[in-house]
Parts: sequence; C-alpha cells; structure tokens
Amino acid sequence: MERFELHILGCGSALPTTLHFPSCQVLNLRDKLYMIDCGEGAQMQFRAMKLRFNRLNNLFISHLHGDHCFGLPGLLSTLGLLGRTGEFTIFAHPDAEKMFRPLLNYFCRELPYSVRFIAVNPDRSEQIFEDRTMRVYSIPLKHRIPTCGFLFEELPKSPHIIREMIDFYHIPVKQIASIKSGEPFVTDDGAVVPNHLLTRPATPPKRYAYCSDTAYYEKVLPIIHGVDLLYHEATFCEADLLRANETFHSSARQAATIAKLAEVRRLMLGHFSARYPDVALLLSEAQAIFPETLCAQERMVLPL
Amino acid sequence: MERFELHILGCGSALPTTLHFPSCQVLNLRDKLYMIDCGEGAQMQFRAMKLRFNRLNNLFISHLHGDHCFGLPGLLSTLGLLGRTGEFTIFAHPDAEKMFRPLLNYFCRELPYSVRFIAVNPDRSEQIFEDRTMRVYSIPLKHRIPTCGFLFEELPKSPHIIREMIDFYHIPVKQIASIKSGEPFVTDDGAVVPNHLLTRPATPPKRYAYCSDTAYYEKVLPIIHGVDLLYHEATFCEADLLRANETFHSSARQAATIAKLAEVRRLMLGHFSARYPDVALLLSEAQAIFPETLCAQERMVLPL
Repeated sequence: MERFELHILGCGSALPTTLHFPSCQVLNLRDKLYMIDCGEGAQMQFRAMKLRFNRLNNLFISHLHGDHCFGLPGLLSTLGLLGRTGEFTIFAHPDAEKMFRPLLNYFCRELPYSVRFIAVNPDRSEQIFEDRTMRVYSIPLKHRIPTCGFLFEELPKSPHIIREMIDFYHIPVKQIASIKSGEPFVTDDGAVVPNHLLTRPATPPKRYAYCSDTAYYEKVLPIIHGVDLLYHEATFCEADLLRANETFHSSARQAATIAKLAEVRRLMLGHFSARYPDVALLLSEAQAIFPETLCAQERMVLPL
Repeated sequence: MERFELHILGCGSALPTTLHFPSCQVLNLRDKLYMIDCGEGAQMQFRAMKLRFNRLNNLFISHLHGDHCFGLPGLLSTLGLLGRTGEFTIFAHPDAEKMFRPLLNYFCRELPYSVRFIAVNPDRSEQIFEDRTMRVYSIPLKHRIPTCGFLFEELPKSPHIIREMIDFYHIPVKQIASIKSGEPFVTDDGAVVPNHLLTRPATPPKRYAYCSDTAYYEKVLPIIHGVDLLYHEATFCEADLLRANETFHSSARQAATIAKLAEVRRLMLGHFSARYPDVALLLSEAQAIFPETLCAQERMVLPL
C-alpha cells in the first residue's frame, strides 16, 4: 500500500485549551507532506509527531482567522534555521501575504529559501495545485470572512501489471511502461495481446476534503461527493445551534448531514469549541445521522 | 509569606524542540502576574500551568527575535475572546508596535480591551514601570539586535507590627497604619513610645533580574548586583564558545561568571540551544564557577 495518511496537529477552535491546539493538519502522500492550516504551536506539534520538515513544501490556509495561521511566522522561521533551501509555497487568501510578508521581512531577514504566497480566490472552486502525486482544489465555504476548504486528490495511478501474463508472453522490461500506459503487446510473430489481458485496473485515486470553518453549506456537496474522508468542522453541539448560526460555524449534526448528502466514506469531526471538555456528545449526535463518523484528536494519524 | 514566584513557560532558544518551548516566563507577585517574553505557545503554557489570564496586565519583551514574541498575537487574541476589558500593556522595543499593531488591527478587529505599547529605550537602564507592588527597570544587554533585560523589584514593604506591644499599649486599630508608616505612638497620658519598640524592620524587597539574550556583558553588573535571583541565558556550553561569540549569546560558564561578579543569591540558566538534549553539562560548567546555580525547565515554579 502506498502511504496516504492524515495527521492531526490541532483540532481545537479559536480558544486553545489544555486539550486542543488550534487548527493544523498534515497530509502525507508517499512521504510528501502537505500542511493544512497553521495555528499557533503547529511547528511544535509537527516536531512532536516526528514529521520531517524537509518533506514539507506546501501549506494551504483556509482563512485568515488567527487560530488557522498564527503558527506561520514560527514555522517559517524554523524552516530557515534548519537550512531549508528552494521554495516554500503558501496557498491562502490574498491578504495573507500583506499581513505576513512584513513580519517575514523583519523577523526572518536572511532566510535561505524563498516563501511564495499564492492567492486563492475564495469565490469559486478551482484547481489550485498539482504536483506529480496530488491535485488540490479549493472549496468555497460559508464563514464570517472569506474561507476556502481544500479537496486533495491523488493523481490517477497506473494500472497494475499482471505478473503471470508478463512472464507468459516473455514481455521485456523496457515495454512495461507502455503497457502500464494502456498499450497492447505485440508478439514476435505479430499477434496482438490486448492491454486488458495484461493489467488490472488501477486502484482508484483517494480523495480527502477539508471543510473548516463553515456554516452548514450545501454548495460544497458536488465538490466533495464521495470522498474517502471528509473533515468537517463541528464546533458546537445541537443545543448550541443558535451560537453556531451566529458565528457561521456548524453543529456536529450539520456536519453529519453534509457527510450523508455527499455520500462520503468517512467523516471526521473537528474544530471543537473550548466549551466541551469531552466531545462524546458531538460524536453521538453526528453518528445518529452518519454512523461512519469519528472525532479528530491531537496526534492522531489516520490512513485514508 | 507573601507570594513571589517565577513560572517558567519556555526556556528553549530559537529552535523549539520536543523538550523546550521558546522564551516565556511569568512572575507572580501577590497574585499579580507579569509576563516576560512571549514565544510561540506562551498562551498554551500559561493555561497548562493554570495561571489566570485576568491577573495578567503587563508584558515585558526583551527583544524582537521571533522566539521571544511570536506568541503575542495568539495571547492578545485569546485575552479578547475571554472578554478582557481595560488595558493591556506591552513594554518592548519601539518596532514592536510597528510590527504587531497591523496584525492586531486585522486579526483582532473588535478587542474589548485596549493594547498599549510602551517603547523601551534599549540604550540606557531606567525605571520603566511601577505599580503598587512592583517596580521594573530595563537592563541594556549585548545582542545582535537591540535587547533589554528587566529588573523586577518589589516596592519597599511596611515594617512588621509587634503584636504584643500593640496589645500592651492598647493601641487602637485605626492607628496601626501610621505606626506602619514609621510614626511613634503617644499614650493618653502623653508618653511617647518610639516606633522601633512597636515594629520590626520590613522584609527586604526581593529582586529578580532577567538577562536574555546577551553575550557576556559586564555592564549589567551594577544593575543586577545582589539580586535574589538572576536568570541569565546560557545558550551554549564552553566547547561551543565560538558559536556563542558569533551569535552574541553566552556560555553557561559566562553566565555563572556574571552571577559571581554580581554577587547574586541564585542563578538560573536558560535559553538552551536545541543541540543539547540534556543540560547537565551546562549546569556543571556553571556550578564550577557559581555553585548556587539551577537550570530552568518548562512548568517549573520557583519561589523567590
């Protein structure tokens, strides 16, 4: 199995508690790390979870509330002290660069690497990133300020070679690549072996959606439909729904409703309000709607 | 005994580790809290140590390196969420307001309290603060950028009343204050009882000096002479003295030399480089010069 796992560095909300750090996650796809949000203490949690700074090149910030980005100056400073080179890319609202570039210029004057901010348009869903293994799309959310979630999608993989057939036809190694890309094999005497006899379909690419912070918002449904894992904020329980509405947050039940309507495989709740020392109630309220629900927890690692 | 104690929230240096948070301390004098430096994670440590946010009104920042102030936005935001009112005062280099005010304006738009920055002149030692219990002086240090340590001094206390003498002379309660302020007592028949018969001298005011970050710098000696506790940075051990010199930091031995020359009562080492998983060597190098040395450690509480 190729590694694709989600690390929870922080799943609290605006007010850090002794239980929770503010929002931060790291997605590990084949040992490349993608950070999502960067609340205060992100770099400490990153280190505590034994993640490797030199594997981290991209950070996706959902919105510019402090509990989602106050860990940024410390993280960037530390990357510099560790002698990082090349480029570090931050996808965020256009104001992110306006707010953090002056801090960088003052506090991290001689960084050995460059920091590039890429503005994410919070008004429409679009592809914002692609590398050799991952594609990322923005997910406009409904919050007090412009906010985007992110959809992470593995690139389509090559089909699996059927070892026995390769041996049977004595197919040379140098032709494997063309067969993986869908070509048939032609034998020395001109017979054509169709590709479907030589391969099994690729494992479907996995998808992870991050929706935080947001009120209940059905416009996300077509974007996140059928994902393997949905992280959806569940700041409040149902009894505090009024407060959720006022602050453009969701209840656990609302998160579960979104998961159910989007027919996702699993739901993870997070962004818990400091008022709940125990999130069991949130979990049970969500599971009543969508059984495949779990609660995020600091230092949890979840394979997709 | 009146409470006067030092809480260590962080005693690491620029690179946080799994062992250390960046610099932050809280001085508790009779349940009023004074924060010294505010590295990333300060507010989490503050909460974890069960300190009370509503007792904290003043923050003293030694210099504008990230490991001494990146916790500031999160702390100020949290104070707002907790409904703080009135004023919160930050003593720091004049650039602190230039760097952090824009962040506050953007991220903490509707704070229910006001944040006041007071510029500390890094070039001379002077009194920068006084309230009913404490006086604070700046201590210019020698670092790569302008840096000031701080001397915290209890205000002189009233002498102790000798209970037995008060009873003997039937001195009414309403006269106790004047006796505490040094007045004699005059009996009904005109006899004058001198003050020294009625009181014992006050406990001498306690003093705490914070010297971080700094190279070896003898100019601090007259300012910190005889303090009850000196916190002096000891980023490096003697074998790394070259590195200490290059970066304007001190070795543990240099810290101890300052403590010895200043005839302080006790020395606490801190601001440990991430390269030392164990600070036993730093401690022994310092104790060889100045035996009354101890090492800071996160969540330590030390009564003065």
